[in-house]
Parts: sequence; structure tokens; C-alpha cells
Amino acid sequence: MRVGVIGLGSMGYGMAQSLLRAGHQTHGFDIDSETVSRFRAEGGAAGTLSEVASDLNCAVIVVLNDAQTRTVLDDLLPRMSRGSVVISCATVPPAFAREMAARAESAGVHYLDAPISGGAVKAAAGALSIMASGSAAAFEAAQPALDAMAESVFTLGDEAGAGSAMKAINQLLVGVHIAAMGEAMTFGMTQGVDPGQTLEVISKCAGTSWAFENRGPHVVEGDYAPASAVDIWLKDLGIVLDIARSARFPAPLTATAFQQFVAASGSGLGREDDAAVAKVYARNAGLTLPGGDA
Amino acid sequence: MRVGVIGLGSMGYGMAQSLLRAGHQTHGFDIDSETVSRFRAEGGAAGTLSEVASDLNCAVIVVLNDAQTRTVLDDLLPRMSRGSVVISCATVPPAFAREMAARAESAGVHYLDAPISGGAVKAAAGALSIMASGSAAAFEAAQPALDAMAESVFTLGDEAGAGSAMKAINQLLVGVHIAAMGEAMTFGMTQGVDPGQTLEVISKCAGTSWAFENRGPHVVEGDYAPASAVDIWLKDLGIVLDIARSARFPAPLTATAFQQFVAASGSGLGREDDAAVAKVYARNAGLTLPGGDA
Repeated sequence: MRVGVIGLGSMGYGMAQSLLRAGHQTHGFDIDSETVSRFRAEGGAAGTLSEVASDLNCAVIVVLNDAQTRTVLDDLLPRMSRGSVVISCATVPPAFAREMAARAESAGVHYLDAPISGGAVKAAAGALSIMASGSAAAFEAAQPALDAMAESVFTLGDEAGAGSAMKAINQLLVGVHIAAMGEAMTFGMTQGVDPGQTLEVISKCAGTSWAFENRGPHVVEGDYAPASAVDIWLKDLGIVLDIARSARFPAPLTATAFQQFVAASGSGLGREDDAAVAKVYARNAGLTLPGGDA
Repeated sequence: MRVGVIGLGSMGYGMAQSLLRAGHQTHGFDIDSETVSRFRAEGGAAGTLSEVASDLNCAVIVVLNDAQTRTVLDDLLPRMSRGSVVISCATVPPAFAREMAARAESAGVHYLDAPISGGAVKAAAGALSIMASGSAAAFEAAQPALDAMAESVFTLGDEAGAGSAMKAINQLLVGVHIAAMGEAMTFGMTQGVDPGQTLEVISKCAGTSWAFENRGPHVVEGDYAPASAVDIWLKDLGIVLDIARSARFPAPLTATAFQQFVAASGSGLGREDDAAVAKVYARNAGLTLPGGDA
């Protein structure tokens, strides 16, 4: 297959590497030309997006949000060949995914609503989880690329939108759970329980979650190098809250977790690892976290 | 050993059964005389608490809260023999546990701060998790009873209070996670994703938690027979919020989850399974949950 990956960020770069490794002729596109050059040095194919768009069997769009996805598709859809497929991976509202799918289909291009989960390490290993929905033809056209990028593909129905809905549900939970991890770790500190002990015990108890076990160690080690940044949650919980408001659905826990991430970002922690939401709690209670951040 | 279990509720009854099965002479006490008779019919030893208190090696207190624990200890401590041990299992504030431990020690009775986790099924199977702290002598005196009742005993230090602190941390997380499960399941329904599909997919994704996987099926099956009731959370998250306020610790997610359980209880669901918090979300958004509850 000839594949283009649009957006070589922490996820897209690894996905492009996984496609290369699987033997696909892979073009990498990004606004940062240095990143594009770096990918070509690893074996990426040459050519600008306008030059190669009509030859692509598959375009994987891994940009930040719906606005960027729209900009890419405005440029790309008129150039792509009939029967090719767009795999759209950004976290977007389900209604947006349905709109883009309709536009793609009317241009003769298949569209897979395919938000991703798993982080940069799994992206580079070709071991992502993908929450996908779309027509049988879209799944068929996308299959070789999915095989290269994903460990699990959840097939969520034959219409775009269902994939994005499941991603939003997942993000609601992960965001709330990360903030709850921060709340619990620092609450424990007020009672003389250090975060390391909380991590060790709660990981084996009913209070555990994937997010607790994954992000808790960052607090325990005082390491806030971003695996996933605080600002991601301003975007993703913001999307969840937008969807919820449109549906007249009150989401009080999501709204509360969102405010904690806003406080983290507002106090200068936006580019730190999202576990830094614990610093908001620590500061508000006069606590000193492991590593000395307050 | 001669053991008394004070409080034969859903947890205490099973713990008393586990002690019996392990070969201990076990007395069961409860304000409900029918429950006491039922336990005696299963092999429980006879005698009132005042008659047997001085002969007990160990008293396991499994009542609702700190007030009931205090009432039991007011009656019990003056009667117990030196060198015997109290295993206090209710969820209580750490400061209360420290106060009771001091009173017990001054009466020559060891005190183990030992909140329990795991639910009625594990209580009956002798497979609880116990978060315990206390003196080496308290642990030693309690060991045969702990062996009979618990699968895991977390030893959290040599002072009462640490066990209760860890239990509070655990309850904070479980309570928030159960409410988040309700929020996520119903949010998904607004986007056309049914709870069964959410459960199936999210259990394998980063959004999962122990509470999600344990309580989610109740929503999917529309079965709200109480494994753990809504009203437990008014008590337990209430304790967490009391501790937090005393420590000048803002706990916004806990406070928000608490309000959702208050709404569940206030609308008549207090004795239903705590997964019924999903009904609050459903009602507020005009959704009909599996099983037809709205």
C-alpha cells in the first residue's frame, strides 16, 4: 500500500514508523519540515502532499482536533482517488465525524472514524487500540494500515461517529480517573500516607484504575516529563463537555476534573505530564509532593 | 481462640462464618436477635456479650460507623481481659482510630485499626482485604483471626490511624469511580452507544477501573439488588469529606461524586445498589436505562 500519514506528532510519527516497518510505502507530512526530513531519513517516501495525494491508497490523519482535521480534508479529499480511504484518528465530536464521512463518501473516498488510544510508545510499536466505525468498504480498504498500526481494533458499527463516541466515553473516564488519582494521593498525604504507599496498596484494592496505576508512578517519582500533557485534557474533556452540552447531558465529574486541568494549565503546567494535576491539589493544601514540587 | 464478632451485617456475618470455619469458638452479637439465633444455628457459641467479654481473646467490631464503634467499646473495653485484642473494622476517621487505640491500650487491650474491603461474598469466603495498622503486639494477638478472615492483610505501620487513612483513600477512589461509571455509561447513551457496548470496549481500554468492571454490569443488566448500597457512600464519602475539611484539603471530585449519591438517596434509591447512581444521570438527561428505570 501507499500510505500518507498527516501529522507527525508523538502519535503520528510512531504510527508512520509502524507502517514503514510493515512494508508500506509511507509518506509522512507535518508542518514541521525538520520532522518530515527526520522521517524520510528513516525510510519515508518523498514528495509533497499535493504531489502524491492522488496516488495514496490510504491517508491517516493524526492531527490535534476537528479544526485541523477539517483543514486537512478540505485540501486532501478533492485530490484523492476513488476507492481510497481516509483513516481519521483525532479525537473529535461524533457529529463532526459523521459530517466528514458524508463529504468523503460524496467524493468517492471511504472514511473510517478511527480514534486511537495507547500513547506514543504503543504507536511506535504498532500496538495501538483503535475505536473504529465506518462502512464495510472503509474497513476493507483500511485493513492493511490497521494491521500495521494496531494491536486491537474495536469495530463499533457501520457508521462514522460511533468510534468518536466511544473515544469520548474513554476520555471522560481517563480524565476523571487521572484527576481522582491526584486527589487521592494528596488527600492521603494530609493523613501521613505517602504517595508510594498509596500506590502500592491501592493498586491491589478496589480503588484502582488503569489511570491510577499508569499515572500514579509519575507522582511517586516526581517525574512530570510529558507522556501525555495536561493540555491534552483541556482539549479532550472540552470535547466531552461540548458533546454533553449539545445533548443536554449534565456531566458534573467531567466538569470538575476539567477545572482541575484548567487550573494546572493556568498555573503554568500545561506542557507537563497530566499527572501534574496532583500539583494543583498539593498547592491548594500546602503539601510538598515527591520531587519537591508544590 | 475465643472470638466475638460484634455486628452481624452483610460483612460481619460472613466474617463470623469464616472464623467458625477456621475452628475458632465464635460468638456473634447483633441488635437483631433473629440474626444472632441464625448464627448460633450455624455453630455460633452462646452467651451475651456481657457474659463472655472477659473470656474473649479477640473482639471483631464490624458496625456501621465511628459512633457505633464508640458505643461498643464503651461497653466492651472495661470487661475485656488484659492482652486481648480489638479488631476495629468500621470505616472511621483516622483521628477516631487513634483515640480508640489509646483508650484500649490504657485498659491493657491491644487495638488493631483494621478497615475491611472486598464485599459480602469475600467476607463469607474469608477472603477480605484488611488495611491494618497497630502495635506489633496487636498484630500478633490478632493474627489467627486475620488469617481466618482475610486473603490480604496490608500492614500499614505501628500506629492506629494509618489503616483508616488508607481505607479513606480507597473509598474516595471507589466512590468517584462508581459515579464516573454512571456518568460515562449514560453519556454514551446520548451518543447512541448502549451500556453493554461501553462495558465491553472500555473494560479493555485506558478508561477502565475496578469499579467500572465491577459495577458496570449492574447497569447493563438493570439489576440494582444491593451488593453495596447507595447510602454507604453518603457515609463513606461523608467521612472522606470530613477528614478533608479538617485537613483544609479541597476534594472537588469527592464532593461532586458525593452530591450524585445524595441525589440518588434523596430520590428514593438509598437502599439500591450503588450503581443506581446512574439513574440520577439518566433522569437528568431523559434517558431510559436497561431494565426500564429512568
